[in-house]
Amino acid sequence: MQIISAHQSVEKWGVFEAAFEGPSSGNPFTEQYVRGSFRGAFETAEAEGFYDGNGIYRIRFMPSYTGTYSWRVETSFGDAEGIFEVYDASENNHGPVRVAETYHFAYEDGTRFFPLGTTCYVWNLQSDERIEETLRTLEENAFNKIRFCIFPKHYDYNLGEPRSYPYEGTPMDSSVLTKENFQKYTGRAEGNAFDYTRFRPDHFRHIETCILELQKRGIEADLIVMHPYDRWGFSCMTREQDILYWKYVLARFSAFRNVWWSLANEHDFMPEKTTEDWELYASLIMKHDPYRHLCSIHNGLIFYNHHRPWITHCSIQRQDLYKSAELVDEWRETYRKPVVLDEICYEGNIQHGWGNISGEEMVRRFWEAVCRGGYPGHGETYMNEDDILWWSHGGKLHGKSQKRFFLLRDILQETPGPGLMPWKGAGWDEICGVPENQAALPVKTYYLFYYSFMRPSFRDYWFDDETEFSVCVIDTWNMTRTDAGVHKGHFRVQLPGRAYMAVQIRKV
Amino acid sequence: MQIISAHQSVEKWGVFEAAFEGPSSGNPFTEQYVRGSFRGAFETAEAEGFYDGNGIYRIRFMPSYTGTYSWRVETSFGDAEGIFEVYDASENNHGPVRVAETYHFAYEDGTRFFPLGTTCYVWNLQSDERIEETLRTLEENAFNKIRFCIFPKHYDYNLGEPRSYPYEGTPMDSSVLTKENFQKYTGRAEGNAFDYTRFRPDHFRHIETCILELQKRGIEADLIVMHPYDRWGFSCMTREQDILYWKYVLARFSAFRNVWWSLANEHDFMPEKTTEDWELYASLIMKHDPYRHLCSIHNGLIFYNHHRPWITHCSIQRQDLYKSAELVDEWRETYRKPVVLDEICYEGNIQHGWGNISGEEMVRRFWEAVCRGGYPGHGETYMNEDDILWWSHGGKLHGKSQKRFFLLRDILQETPGPGLMPWKGAGWDEICGVPENQAALPVKTYYLFYYSFMRPSFRDYWFDDETEFSVCVIDTWNMTRTDAGVHKGHFRVQLPGRAYMAVQIRKV
Repeated sequence: MQIISAHQSVEKWGVFEAAFEGPSSGNPFTEQYVRGSFRGAFETAEAEGFYDGNGIYRIRFMPSYTGTYSWRVETSFGDAEGIFEVYDASENNHGPVRVAETYHFAYEDGTRFFPLGTTCYVWNLQSDERIEETLRTLEENAFNKIRFCIFPKHYDYNLGEPRSYPYEGTPMDSSVLTKENFQKYTGRAEGNAFDYTRFRPDHFRHIETCILELQKRGIEADLIVMHPYDRWGFSCMTREQDILYWKYVLARFSAFRNVWWSLANEHDFMPEKTTEDWELYASLIMKHDPYRHLCSIHNGLIFYNHHRPWITHCSIQRQDLYKSAELVDEWRETYRKPVVLDEICYEGNIQHGWGNISGEEMVRRFWEAVCRGGYPGHGETYMNEDDILWWSHGGKLHGKSQKRFFLLRDILQETPGPGLMPWKGAGWDEICGVPENQAALPVKTYYLFYYSFMRPSFRDYWFDDETEFSVCVIDTWNMTRTDAGVHKGHFRVQLPGRAYMAVQIRKV
Repeated sequence: MQIISAHQSVEKWGVFEAAFEGPSSGNPFTEQYVRGSFRGAFETAEAEGFYDGNGIYRIRFMPSYTGTYSWRVETSFGDAEGIFEVYDASENNHGPVRVAETYHFAYEDGTRFFPLGTTCYVWNLQSDERIEETLRTLEENAFNKIRFCIFPKHYDYNLGEPRSYPYEGTPMDSSVLTKENFQKYTGRAEGNAFDYTRFRPDHFRHIETCILELQKRGIEADLIVMHPYDRWGFSCMTREQDILYWKYVLARFSAFRNVWWSLANEHDFMPEKTTEDWELYASLIMKHDPYRHLCSIHNGLIFYNHHRPWITHCSIQRQDLYKSAELVDEWRETYRKPVVLDEICYEGNIQHGWGNISGEEMVRRFWEAVCRGGYPGHGETYMNEDDILWWSHGGKLHGKSQKRFFLLRDILQETPGPGLMPWKGAGWDEICGVPENQAALPVKTYYLFYYSFMRPSFRDYWFDDETEFSVCVIDTWNMTRTDAGVHKGHFRVQLPGRAYMAVQIRKV
């Protein structure tokens, strides 16, 4: 078997890749296989390879330790083997993100990771210029996770052609689509002629570029593998076709350290899929992702059973028009997993109720989530002449919430321990985060009070008679932090009688 | 027995009163009685009288029909009788308010009554000047119901002396009270020396003046008969003392047509009182209020059982920090009675979470309540140098919500039928009130959509293909109504992409 290339060395949590020449006749996606095993001093792993077109097959592996690794690949057209060296991770490479202390996250090297996400469903399937613009916007903001799809999206404001399709074939004529009629074209609409067994490697290769561009910027790629917003039939393939797709996705993307799996966006809006299907696809992830990336499944109206063992964290779309982040405590207690609010409405002004809250309300939901020990996600849907909405297309941000997240990120970083949990001692009219796992970190260390839409002119505090606390008043909307002195015993903190204030109280 | 005075004529739903001379020795409140029966062509009723001090006893009666009535009074010190004429009600006298069509209210003459309440717990126990100021403020605003107490109030911002006490005796020295220590003085604090069997008639007489001043202004007096905020022992009298009090209150106030009974403010914050007590006091109302005024009991954390037959309407303090008016539909379905939101937080900036929401949020809760078929109530708690807060003392209003209620009142008046009910056909992201009892009023007549904190730039509607609707866009915050034309079939209404918008759609 002809080895085209194979990395000789790679950084820890980098991607080792080997490429081989193989058959291009027939359907290489279904008729050939590539399987590899990787062995270092501290780990052995198996991974599958994939056909990348033009008679080229690839296999990837993400090593989690330094030192010498050997690899051995078996394919349907021959075998190969070799060795490579894994050197130390570079400065900004902390490894994949893991669940830490039940409710929180940390990179594999132990660095804490506090998700502040955003959603741009198909930013990756726009023009090069738009993608550049999106990446620039991400650089200018505090987001460290982004949700996006592998399949293109068909929906209101999403009627155009994607830059590429995942399968060989031809799509229906999209020039017939209008804002009025688009809902008639769902699932496998007439006029589509795709071969759901022949991938277009360029589509996936481009997504890999996007994943790496995010990685460079310290952003996690929360990949939405399936979703209901479809006119091409990608949401209603047969189970066999789905399995082929899942294995291809897993073979191509698993070795990227910043990948998270989202089995679906709004799983319950996909009538063709059953719980049995989702459990099967989850089992494919468990089998074919040797790195155990973070994994969840996002809901429309009905939560998936987040108790399932393969679900690492709750990926939540709020179910109630009025309460979203306010329910984080409840979900933490119910599921005993990190709560990630991947959809709590988008800031904007479109006609749909899921996409027209104010910047103020978005920031309020972020603080509510954080002080209750959860992790909020952003999105933006402002109407504009070109129908370019961040929520789907990326581009520029026009809202008022995003620049407020820097302050929240900074405050989060000041949390002692793995993250915040809701303090049971808080009053009925205040939200207060304290360090998670107080068995390890004694109480009276750190309190982050949040007053949400309430507008107290002052608040009184008492924790004990001895401890000295330094107090900082935070205006989460105007982005100011004001030192309010050192206090002990009973003390009063003056507040401006405005909404969106927080009070950070730290043991001196 | 010496008759001092007796009305010869009175308007329908006015107050007939007769006064008698009687003993002033011993304790007339416990040792004497006055009972009357009243007979007209269409009704007979019994009522009790009361001792008004200085050897004078009075009995009152509110006739509900015109024509000649006879009266007969028996007392422990002699009997008397006479007749009086009842003439037509004057223009602004519509009678007492009744429940209409299960969920709504109307005066006895059939005129609809849409409650828009406010709360000033002890406005009536302030100085004459403050009371005048409160009445002027009420004249300048849209409120048509006010909640207030018979007993004085001891609480934060309420440490001063009331203008009078309901009982003979002397209060504790209030000069020892501070904002820091007031909570130590609760119930029957040391230093109080009241005789809970001897009323001070001037206290009650003054409240009657206040009830009549409200009546002149078309405002219902929602009398809070008991409440927990006490340092004088009025909240923890014996059951016998309570009964004496209830009978005195009922004898004095029942004949005023604009009285509503609120058994208690925050009944569950009165640990001395049991359900048995409340049921007993309710039975006294049923027995001694022959006019069956509206009657309810207000909660702290736990609703009283609003299914009880003597409860005419749900008097609700919201239980959840985030959802208040949003739960009106649920409460309507549960209790099948009018839902009156007597406490949904106060507009203001005090330290307490029940008293520091914005004007915007207050107005939003009002519209949510109304479009769901409930009736909201206001209150205001802005800090100021003199500690005069509308919520307790009355005076001036400083907020932003109150002037917006005129528009809501006008819109409510445009409702066809008895009032609004939540429309089951509304989308998940809109609130829509339609006329109650659609069996009588066909659908497709009237829709009042409300978009709350959402900011749609447009909304699409369809009811049928034939009916013509005239559309009005209402900016509930900026208080504008904009004609949006006549439409039929599928139609789109442009909105400004701001919060707090409503759309009124009426069959042409």
